[in-house]
Amino acid sequence: MSSVLSGIKIAVLGGDDRELILISELVKMGATVVVAGFPREKISHGAFAASAVDKACKGAEVIILPLPGTSANGVIRAVYSEEELRLTEEVMSGISKDTLVIIGSARQYLKKWADIYGFNLLEIGEMDEIAILNSIPTAEGAIQIAMEESRITIHGSKSCIVGFGRIGVTLARCLGALGSNVTVVARDEGQLARAYEMGCKRASFADLPGIVSYSDIVFNTVPHMVLDREVLKHANPEIIIIDLAAQPGGTDFEAANAFGLKAILAPGLPGKVAPVTAGRILASVVPRIIIKELSRMNKELLFGKQGGAVGAGDTRSAVARG
Amino acid sequence: MSSVLSGIKIAVLGGDDRELILISELVKMGATVVVAGFPREKISHGAFAASAVDKACKGAEVIILPLPGTSANGVIRAVYSEEELRLTEEVMSGISKDTLVIIGSARQYLKKWADIYGFNLLEIGEMDEIAILNSIPTAEGAIQIAMEESRITIHGSKSCIVGFGRIGVTLARCLGALGSNVTVVARDEGQLARAYEMGCKRASFADLPGIVSYSDIVFNTVPHMVLDREVLKHANPEIIIIDLAAQPGGTDFEAANAFGLKAILAPGLPGKVAPVTAGRILASVVPRIIIKELSRMNKELLFGKQGGAVGAGDTRSAVARG
Amino acid sequence: MSSVLSGIKIAVLGGDDRELILISELVKMGATVVVAGFPREKISHGAFAASAVDKACKGAEVIILPLPGTSANGVIRAVYSEEELRLTEEVMSGISKDTLVIIGSARQYLKKWADIYGFNLLEIGEMDEIAILNSIPTAEGAIQIAMEESRITIHGSKSCIVGFGRIGVTLARCLGALGSNVTVVARDEGQLARAYEMGCKRASFADLPGIVSYSDIVFNTVPHMVLDREVLKHANPEIIIIDLAAQPGGTDFEAANAFGLKAILAPGLPGKVAPVTAGRILASVVPRIIIKELSRMNKELLFGKQGGAVGAGDTRSAVARG
Amino acid sequence: MSSVLSGIKIAVLGGDDRELILISELVKMGATVVVAGFPREKISHGAFAASAVDKACKGAEVIILPLPGTSANGVIRAVYSEEELRLTEEVMSGISKDTLVIIGSARQYLKKWADIYGFNLLEIGEMDEIAILNSIPTAEGAIQIAMEESRITIHGSKSCIVGFGRIGVTLARCLGALGSNVTVVARDEGQLARAYEMGCKRASFADLPGIVSYSDIVFNTVPHMVLDREVLKHANPEIIIIDLAAQPGGTDFEAANAFGLKAILAPGLPGKVAPVTAGRILASVVPRIIIKELSRMNKELLFGKQGGAVGAGDTRSAVARG
Repeated sequence: MSSVLSGIKIAVLGGDDRELILISELVKMGATVVVAGFPREKISHGAFAASAVDKACKGAEVIILPLPGTSANGVIRAVYSEEELRLTEEVMSGISKDTLVIIGSARQYLKKWADIYGFNLLEIGEMDEIAILNSIPTAEGAIQIAMEESRITIHGSKSCIVGFGRIGVTLARCLGALGSNVTVVARDEGQLARAYEMGCKRASFADLPGIVSYSDIVFNTVPHMVLDREVLKHANPEIIIIDLAAQPGGTDFEAANAFGLKAILAPGLPGKVAPVTAGRILASVVPRIIIKELSRMNKELLFGKQGGAVGAGDTRSAVARG
Repeated sequence: MSSVLSGIKIAVLGGDDRELILISELVKMGATVVVAGFPREKISHGAFAASAVDKACKGAEVIILPLPGTSANGVIRAVYSEEELRLTEEVMSGISKDTLVIIGSARQYLKKWADIYGFNLLEIGEMDEIAILNSIPTAEGAIQIAMEESRITIHGSKSCIVGFGRIGVTLARCLGALGSNVTVVARDEGQLARAYEMGCKRASFADLPGIVSYSDIVFNTVPHMVLDREVLKHANPEIIIIDLAAQPGGTDFEAANAFGLKAILAPGLPGKVAPVTAGRILASVVPRIIIKELSRMNKELLFGKQGGAVGAGDTRSAVARG
Repeated sequence: MSSVLSGIKIAVLGGDDRELILISELVKMGATVVVAGFPREKISHGAFAASAVDKACKGAEVIILPLPGTSANGVIRAVYSEEELRLTEEVMSGISKDTLVIIGSARQYLKKWADIYGFNLLEIGEMDEIAILNSIPTAEGAIQIAMEESRITIHGSKSCIVGFGRIGVTLARCLGALGSNVTVVARDEGQLARAYEMGCKRASFADLPGIVSYSDIVFNTVPHMVLDREVLKHANPEIIIIDLAAQPGGTDFEAANAFGLKAILAPGLPGKVAPVTAGRILASVVPRIIIKELSRMNKELLFGKQGGAVGAGDTRSAVARG
Repeated sequence: MSSVLSGIKIAVLGGDDRELILISELVKMGATVVVAGFPREKISHGAFAASAVDKACKGAEVIILPLPGTSANGVIRAVYSEEELRLTEEVMSGISKDTLVIIGSARQYLKKWADIYGFNLLEIGEMDEIAILNSIPTAEGAIQIAMEESRITIHGSKSCIVGFGRIGVTLARCLGALGSNVTVVARDEGQLARAYEMGCKRASFADLPGIVSYSDIVFNTVPHMVLDREVLKHANPEIIIIDLAAQPGGTDFEAANAFGLKAILAPGLPGKVAPVTAGRILASVVPRIIIKELSRMNKELLFGKQGGAVGAGDTRSAVARG
């Protein structure tokens, strides 16, 4: 049992199996962990169960919310909680100014509270490290869906990946390795050069109508309407569309339905298809982030700091300061 | 439309979606195809539907039975048939001596009939070409099951393949490509050398107890009891065992159950997980086999032949002659 | 023969086999190409040979200098020229204000001239597209050197890649595919996450002394002194260091020599190990860049433009305007 | 220091760096090793240097000759020996009947002597284990030659592998992994099915003229004249032919020369391009073979044995008994 987090009080509010693994790791590292939104028997030995969000947050230096975050009106995703778990202004206005609040992606109201009440809000969902590690269960989950839905093998199939960011790259590697003929559609010439290096064919968005006409499987990763009615009307009737972009995805599902095409919106795969791996990702990254941020905040306390809200994507600039 | 099978009458008895693709291909190649065990509307334009097995076989130069073959008492696998489709001695005693009868794997009674009634029985299930091509959907199906059953990703997992024949090699490539740490258990030093070349760790059967103690997923391909009680009692409680060997597999499922281990027998994957690909495999291989065998039999008719009913494994020696 | 560059006069000054392929492509696309620094018989039919730099540049709308650029005092790399080819202020002060000058990487004096004389200077060496495509011959060249210099196979070797940018990623894929055990050393957690996804081990710069103590081959891609005396003193005596960073590399070669270690500085591999592929890369990218820049400059002529020198790395911002 | 070979006297006659690694391993395992054909200072501590072949063989239970064997008139390959090392009938007629003589591949005269003088001759070069492990340095060496000789990258190249045995399979994996478009030419449909599974295109020998007309690199592994004048006259003038088959290869080098084609005969690559890896292969396999054979011979001594001089290919049947 290490003690790098010794003496630090961390509140974990809601989540799923992933948070259970994270909690266990935080306890191992010496933190005092108080948990809301899980039954006592689910929580690893050494952590404390709180009966409510406000009790968990009391005195916490760090508050951890789930990667999927909250609904627009503050309901925290908490799959093991029988009651609704809610993040209220009352609670958040009462936490200490130095509190580090970690969440996958924050709704507007939470960013506003960070500004008003001065807590440090850190959105980690778009950090490269988290997003790239999570791209592994996402890509495997997408392939699992493709295997389940199709009547052909990935090997020898014609697949298309729309968008070549963190998920697209991982997916290309997996599909290519399994023997699919992969075409990557992207705007950026540098991304297309990387796709070519990885053994994929390259195409532009203008090529999409032609590509969907012969593709067996299309994976979308772009969070804009890219597979629209105009594109879909050219689609191979046997096509399978798997949309991995954040809700509502980048597919015109209504049009797909009208054309009789199989199109599946599949957000949040890591927690669903590989909760243990996804939990280990959190457990490997979040403690490091906590240590880094707390030590940075301590320095700022000593040497003065500048205000300014929000910002994210990169640990160096990701904290919303009060 | 090619005509290499022009004028040849072929009976297809039972089967599933794979045979539908095969039938379509045979028709395209000019054969006269008569089918039993499928409703008229399922069969591709150009083929004839027969109301019974004996009618389909009448005058056929080639009779095609499904890869999974028949039950011990002659029931032909025919998933689209409402009535039981049965291969009777009456029918088989009435077919011409030169008839080529193609089946995945023949029961003893059929081999006997080939001897008695002199038809040419060809078992194609164990031919390298068919078995290696089918290893692709088998491996993907096995990986799909692993993805569905496990709470971790294949990437980063510790997997073990028991047996390194046609399926084992394909599985090793796929698992390795997805980022699993693969250990191959085999007896043959040459096979182990190949596993090493492919990036796998090598182990012997004596190492199995140790290997199952830390493996996340074990794939068995050996059709003997290799994952027995003695081995399983050392298994990681979270292990997932996927047994791909012909029924009854090589796992002591009763012991697995007693130890609370997840063990799945998964035979006949190609037709289940990728029927179209599996059908295309048949469509690419069976016509070539027919042409080869018919031309060989013609030569033998001209130059005389030796009797003797045989097994198979190799096209050159695979025909049981009357 | 396409004609997208029809009517455009392009001067190509110096270079090697790559430029010969580029010249041929430019001619095919309809450009009027005038070449200095190559003997007449080397140049593809349809291009014109100029006897001197000033003559080639006369009236040119586009001037192409080699990827490696010029020496600090203006000598242009021109492997097929018997005489020294030199870029003088006299010539560059005389070219039209709208001239597009393309070069891999520009020395300070050339950037100054762009400011003074108002030509459009475009550095393409660090553009993602060029750099990623060139990472393929670079990685293969590095592996070729490793194969030539080592007495072991890449398969089964312990290799280390220092830096995980465009070259590092390509190298990791190639080495992993050949069966090497690859460790990636980088600072950025996102890059390390990608390395992990690709099947590599991850390490920080602080781990370097330990890593070099057991590695068989180390590839450096970082253009700072990272393999310094302190690191090298721990190195496996049989180690092979291949430094791919721009001259003078990131290795203390003097220390390596003093410790009896094999260390090789290998800059500019694409033109050396695969000139035809490297030439095709230029031929696939440069015409597109020319069209894009000329059309952008035309728009600016119509709608007015802002001055400001240099900048590069991205086509959108890469042109130094007068 | 293990002692599994303790008390066993082994003579090593000639060889190269590989044998030095093997000698070192044999010493570590407790054998008494006497060496001819190497200078004293080359041999690892613990082994004995003999001044001549007969002295080394005196009393030896095992005699190890190099993988490449001897010339037709008995000259043993011994790269570090200043004098010619020769295997004479005098020496071999004097060794004990139970002596195990290990060689890569034996000339006719040596097989005859095994029959006459009753020693146990074991040819290991064609054993699957040795041949598959050696296929790794062979494939890498072939790729190194291709990289050195070509002006393009392996990535994106069109390559062809003729023959799909132990070397062909390894080569296909490496080339495919580096991004080459690989076509495999073979006769056996099972081998072609495996090639397809590995992502290669499949072709027959009849397709060779067409294939060589567009291929960049052709690797031959078939020890018969397959790349003959008729095939070569269709070859792409820029083709590079690398012939890996045992001398004299399967290429009509004279015709290649007449047509101005680059064709390279490259036998015996493991010892040349990766002597340390190749030596480790011997060191990992040969001691196991010795133990297995000696224990089998001991059993036969106890329970009687049948005479008959034989070839090899399989350890179980590989020993020529007197």
